[in-house]
Amino acid sequence: MDYYTFGPHKIDRRDVFYSTDLLYAFVNLRPVLPAHVLVCPKREVKRFADLTTKETSEMWVTAKRIGNLLETYHKASSLTFTIQDGPQAGQSVAHVHIHIIPGKAGDFEENDEIYDAINESDKELNKRLDLDKVRKDRSSEERIREAEEYRKLIS
Amino acid sequence: MDYYTFGPHKIDRRDVFYSTDLLYAFVNLRPVLPAHVLVCPKREVKRFADLTTKETSEMWVTAKRIGNLLETYHKASSLTFTIQDGPQAGQSVAHVHIHIIPGKAGDFEENDEIYDAINESDKELNKRLDLDKVRKDRSSEERIREAEEYRKLIS
Repeated sequence: MDYYTFGPHKIDRRDVFYSTDLLYAFVNLRPVLPAHVLVCPKREVKRFADLTTKETSEMWVTAKRIGNLLETYHKASSLTFTIQDGPQAGQSVAHVHIHIIPGKAGDFEENDEIYDAINESDKELNKRLDLDKVRKDRSSEERIREAEEYRKLIS
Repeated sequence: MDYYTFGPHKIDRRDVFYSTDLLYAFVNLRPVLPAHVLVCPKREVKRFADLTTKETSEMWVTAKRIGNLLETYHKASSLTFTIQDGPQAGQSVAHVHIHIIPGKAGDFEENDEIYDAINESDKELNKRLDLDKVRKDRSSEERIREAEEYRKLIS
């Protein structure tokens, strides 16, 4: 197999930087921020509730470890961990996945004023945005290079 | 003890609807949507990386179970699971906690137009919003009533 299955998508194995019997972790085609990566069960199931206890534990213990490594590597100071579990939570790929997004001070600094201007409801709405859809594709070369870096980190 | 420790806050034990030796789950003072609840380790640690493997597994297996029960109970169709891990991820209470937020179609329907109008960067920014800060407090009575319902569900 030259690729991993991510819902209807094929993930190039060179984009994958970690895998076990149950899961794999890969760099993102359209990251929200640098080092926005995904952890996914090998079994193609849609909802978080579909995971076994073993898959659930391994997914999150792995996400914790990867997050910690990426935060240090990218000199970040925070991490966002999210599962958008179902279409109304913004899930666009019907295959459970954990988003890991490192963050640091100033990531969104220039938007502060607009941020203040919009109202509560919009803020709530936007939190539920589709993390998979709103960005441009990166090149294969860029993704493979990033995955190589992380493969070294985690090995 | 009449309360559980959540960072600098005291959580009334009547707001807690589930607990084990390692964790507890409680209703939210300021929910984003109905049934927005939190799962928290009993040990007061700030970052996700501070959790042991056992705590990590039990937190997420429990969050999965609670999410599933609440989704059915509230006739929702989706769940958002999030850890805001560190200040730049929007964490305002320095005690690890998983947000579980059930969602259904139409939750934010009336805001669609404003949603379309704001730009990509703002959307990204808003996703990192502080889930703990932007809402009004609910009454103790309301919270206790909700916790009682969930205690029955999960027992």
